[in-house]
Amino acid sequence: MVRQAERQDVIFEQVETDQRERPWEHYLDAELGLRNHWYVAFFSEQLDEGQTRPEMLLGERIYFKRVKGQVYAVEDRCPHRGAAFSSRVECYTPNTVTCPIHGFTFDVRDGNLVAVLTENNSALVGKLAVKAYPVEEKFGCVWVYIGDGEPRPLREDVLPSLWNTENLIIRPTTRYKINSNWRIAIENGFDTGHLYGHRNWASAWRYGAAVPLGTVNKTKEDIRILEKPGDPIGMHVNSSINAWVGEVEGVKVYMNQVDPDNPPPTEGAIYPPDFGPFLPCGLDVPHFPKPGLFHWEWYVPIDEESHMYTILQGAIANTEQEKEDFLRAHEDYLARDIWVDPGTARPMEPPGFNNFDSFGREAMQHVYQNEDFWHRERLYKADYTIIQWRMLVSRNAHVVQKRDNFAKTKNNYPLESP
Amino acid sequence: MVRQAERQDVIFEQVETDQRERPWEHYLDAELGLRNHWYVAFFSEQLDEGQTRPEMLLGERIYFKRVKGQVYAVEDRCPHRGAAFSSRVECYTPNTVTCPIHGFTFDVRDGNLVAVLTENNSALVGKLAVKAYPVEEKFGCVWVYIGDGEPRPLREDVLPSLWNTENLIIRPTTRYKINSNWRIAIENGFDTGHLYGHRNWASAWRYGAAVPLGTVNKTKEDIRILEKPGDPIGMHVNSSINAWVGEVEGVKVYMNQVDPDNPPPTEGAIYPPDFGPFLPCGLDVPHFPKPGLFHWEWYVPIDEESHMYTILQGAIANTEQEKEDFLRAHEDYLARDIWVDPGTARPMEPPGFNNFDSFGREAMQHVYQNEDFWHRERLYKADYTIIQWRMLVSRNAHVVQKRDNFAKTKNNYPLESP
Amino acid sequence: MVRQAERQDVIFEQVETDQRERPWEHYLDAELGLRNHWYVAFFSEQLDEGQTRPEMLLGERIYFKRVKGQVYAVEDRCPHRGAAFSSRVECYTPNTVTCPIHGFTFDVRDGNLVAVLTENNSALVGKLAVKAYPVEEKFGCVWVYIGDGEPRPLREDVLPSLWNTENLIIRPTTRYKINSNWRIAIENGFDTGHLYGHRNWASAWRYGAAVPLGTVNKTKEDIRILEKPGDPIGMHVNSSINAWVGEVEGVKVYMNQVDPDNPPPTEGAIYPPDFGPFLPCGLDVPHFPKPGLFHWEWYVPIDEESHMYTILQGAIANTEQEKEDFLRAHEDYLARDIWVDPGTARPMEPPGFNNFDSFGREAMQHVYQNEDFWHRERLYKADYTIIQWRMLVSRNAHVVQKRDNFAKTKNNYPLESP
Ligand code: FES
Ligand code: FES
Ligand code: FES
Ligand SMILES: [Fe+2]
Ligand SMILES: [Fe+2]
Ligand SMILES: [Fe+2]
Repeated sequence: MVRQAERQDVIFEQVETDQRERPWEHYLDAELGLRNHWYVAFFSEQLDEGQTRPEMLLGERIYFKRVKGQVYAVEDRCPHRGAAFSSRVECYTPNTVTCPIHGFTFDVRDGNLVAVLTENNSALVGKLAVKAYPVEEKFGCVWVYIGDGEPRPLREDVLPSLWNTENLIIRPTTRYKINSNWRIAIENGFDTGHLYGHRNWASAWRYGAAVPLGTVNKTKEDIRILEKPGDPIGMHVNSSINAWVGEVEGVKVYMNQVDPDNPPPTEGAIYPPDFGPFLPCGLDVPHFPKPGLFHWEWYVPIDEESHMYTILQGAIANTEQEKEDFLRAHEDYLARDIWVDPGTARPMEPPGFNNFDSFGREAMQHVYQNEDFWHRERLYKADYTIIQWRMLVSRNAHVVQKRDNFAKTKNNYPLESP
Repeated sequence: MVRQAERQDVIFEQVETDQRERPWEHYLDAELGLRNHWYVAFFSEQLDEGQTRPEMLLGERIYFKRVKGQVYAVEDRCPHRGAAFSSRVECYTPNTVTCPIHGFTFDVRDGNLVAVLTENNSALVGKLAVKAYPVEEKFGCVWVYIGDGEPRPLREDVLPSLWNTENLIIRPTTRYKINSNWRIAIENGFDTGHLYGHRNWASAWRYGAAVPLGTVNKTKEDIRILEKPGDPIGMHVNSSINAWVGEVEGVKVYMNQVDPDNPPPTEGAIYPPDFGPFLPCGLDVPHFPKPGLFHWEWYVPIDEESHMYTILQGAIANTEQEKEDFLRAHEDYLARDIWVDPGTARPMEPPGFNNFDSFGREAMQHVYQNEDFWHRERLYKADYTIIQWRMLVSRNAHVVQKRDNFAKTKNNYPLESP
Repeated sequence: MVRQAERQDVIFEQVETDQRERPWEHYLDAELGLRNHWYVAFFSEQLDEGQTRPEMLLGERIYFKRVKGQVYAVEDRCPHRGAAFSSRVECYTPNTVTCPIHGFTFDVRDGNLVAVLTENNSALVGKLAVKAYPVEEKFGCVWVYIGDGEPRPLREDVLPSLWNTENLIIRPTTRYKINSNWRIAIENGFDTGHLYGHRNWASAWRYGAAVPLGTVNKTKEDIRILEKPGDPIGMHVNSSINAWVGEVEGVKVYMNQVDPDNPPPTEGAIYPPDFGPFLPCGLDVPHFPKPGLFHWEWYVPIDEESHMYTILQGAIANTEQEKEDFLRAHEDYLARDIWVDPGTARPMEPPGFNNFDSFGREAMQHVYQNEDFWHRERLYKADYTIIQWRMLVSRNAHVVQKRDNFAKTKNNYPLESP
């Protein structure tokens, strides 16, 4: 029996109902990520002219190469007998990569087979191709489209504040492989209940950040769903009811920077405006760690059990001086405050903000991967935002990645022509 | 065709028949152990006041904590999103553990949720709980009940000579993870054919132990089955026919301490009286390594492929002097004679009695785990005792542990209330 | 649509047709190798008198022992409870091995149980046996028959030039575990398209070897199938059309020792006469690296994912001086030119001929093992020889090895007698 007071808590009721019915089954299929979307593959500065770089995204092995400034990408799996081009780098010309085993040579710009070094005048030249991936370079990142057919405009898959803010100066901050599924990771990114884990953030003082232990939604309107065709699909998580001081048998628990006897007001906006997750796997965090600064992060699926945690930071800079100031701050402390490589933080006292997030994702991963926690979790009120995200993805993710989706040669002529 | 003489060997006949028919199918299901029993989790001295300790038993992850002297245990898996409490120890008060991810705080004494640090006045407090395990502390060990419902009395799962002997002084001897299934281990414990492996036991001289190469049963009455409701379920392995000297193409093989030209008599009691295996996973070895001394061991399932080999030793001590003598002997040589950590023994010459047992269990494990040896083994006469054990377990183990049995939250209100 | 010119290329047409229809399904079942054949287990010099040696072939664990000069082999898995004899070497007499767990003792010459050290007068002696493998020793190698029933004559499974050449002097060259399926390996051995990978072979100069980038067959008669009952089953790969210079966007690619402006003729014999693969897993390479020298290699399946790459070298030596010359050359450079242990070669510049082969096999292994490349590969004209091999094996390999085939005790009396 539920008390009357609770009956009137619409958020609580909704969480209870939803976790019984789980109206997000499609989301549960998406363990390898969402197909037909653009993904941040790596930072521009990680690939010099003429160089190659292999990466795995959504289980697909992709080989990148920069030619005359432009980045191209092909499947890193030779259609002949499957060797990875990256297993031994063989580039006779800027435009091509050659498979080290039998010398099949492909133009990275379109994937076409341009030479078979081991056969005179091979009949396959001009008729066979390796899958070529659409690539764009923007915001200091290399973006790749994982999917089939004509890619959607890049803009639809870029975090809004990154695309729309004028006069941004942007720096790559970190890129780190974390051992959890991408969904555990993105849910952690805007999880309104996990702030507790950041209570010892060593640099909170620098940004005057008063972060609550956790926050829950007051009304359904706290969440604003952005689902307009042609625009990025995502949601904004807004003002809420905050928990500033917890208590366990009379012992008070509170955040760094919060006076337990004089906490901030219970109701009020905590998240920066327009903060929230977007398809396929990003989190828009404008005005963090303080107003005027920007933080963007992605949890790019590598495979079912890991993601590449990728972070950019930025600022609005209208003058050269402002640019310089930001770059120096980023160099001096911004990146470091946010992130300390796992392993370098002292136990129980994570000095870098995101260390806790990495720990938390890996701590939850085991049971979701091995013990069916997608069906056994016991959600609570703070998970209302997560539930909205799951339903949003279920409605909009038309194709989830499967091992079977992996790139085939786009033209396997003449096998299919009788 | 079998010769007439053999026809009259009832034990031989029975082994041949039984391994054809395998009347122990239920035993073969019990790879994770027997549910609804008490198990030795660890030694009392391994958990100080206020400390916590995670252990896995029968595949369940359990978190122990000592509060005001008493030990409690809860499932080490947060019902919310599955993090292990032990992944980061957070104890704000003696009675509680707090999940490091979202601050769900549970009373270890009953498993009840007492605070959600990240939500003001959470409706779940008082209504959600993590599974709490019945715990008792006795004989210098912490015992935990793995099962459902009201636990049986501890006495039913304690080895008889440990429970019943008066004026015992007891010391923990060793506790070591061994890579074999618990059934391979317990069968090895009373296997009348494996004594051969102990033939080089360096300390046999100290105890005047004349151990045979092997021993087989003469009549079915050699085995006494103990199956009275309300009492420990087990069996006593008694006097037998002994092999003292083996021969391979004229080369004699014999035990340390045995004169091959003048061996002890073939018939006679070898095992100490009342020696034998008991449910769920222990071996009672009173009067070993010599009369007046006691040895108890358990092969506690950790998961399908490993068990915690746990040994206690003891003695009857009626005076302070006798206590001191035993403690000094245990310190000086008793524990060491019995056990040398695997890896420290010289190859082929195991100085510690149980080194061979560990080796033997791991040597047999591979084929049982991977090559269906539960159905391909070729048993012989010395395995008659093992067969009796398997049938005893099949008759009495009403619930075998399955991965599905793993603890759920005992109260997942209000999910189940409409 | 295919151009008219290509229509007339019978090899090209055949490859296209065959890879659509895959008339080699039986070959695809043979991931563990071919049963009922002789295999090179190891080199004679690796097993001294009285010594034992465990090896895995085709997934079977086999225990070898040399007794009075002769090598015997038994299954390295005790029929009793499955321990490996090799887990602890116990040899009381030259003819026997004893299981370290319960003392079952077997004669390695026939596998018969000759003593049970732990039971007086065991009824099983003389009635139980472990599988004994037929063994022969020839050409400095120990050969073992993996199969059932009476073995075929060894001669049928020995590479022809090794069996038939008179006055051979032979030396073991190398034996190295490579992480690829044996079929990837043997296909690589005579793959007419993989020569490209040897273009930097440091020692080509020593043998005056002008090797093309690749070579394809002109007519079906280039391949001579050897399929006469009672003789070794295999094929000879003969003269072909050679590619000497490749070109990528105007950049020329050629082999070490080849003048790109004055290449050798396009048509002509490249492979030494009588070069080719033979069942079960060998490659006959007479007159390599130059006429008068011999090279034989085997890709003996260890399990599904690895093989033992085993190489012998030899020469015809009619006089003592010729023998000495060969032995000195082998010691000084022959073995080294052919093989440098993986890992010691500089990247991209493999000085040992077979380094590239090892690299190539492992580079192709991943997709065949994990991504269904047996059905997704896109073969080309140079693969015509490989296709012939696959069909040859499919026609002649009557029993492929399965995990279920693994040796059972050959006599499990009296279990099967009522
Ligand atoms: S595997 Fe790439 S060319 Fe053959
Ligand atoms: S996972 Fe434990 S409180 Fe959320
Ligand atoms: S396992 Fe070999 S004798 Fe028992
Ligand atoms: Fe966070
Ligand atoms: Fe033992
Ligand atoms: Fe080669």
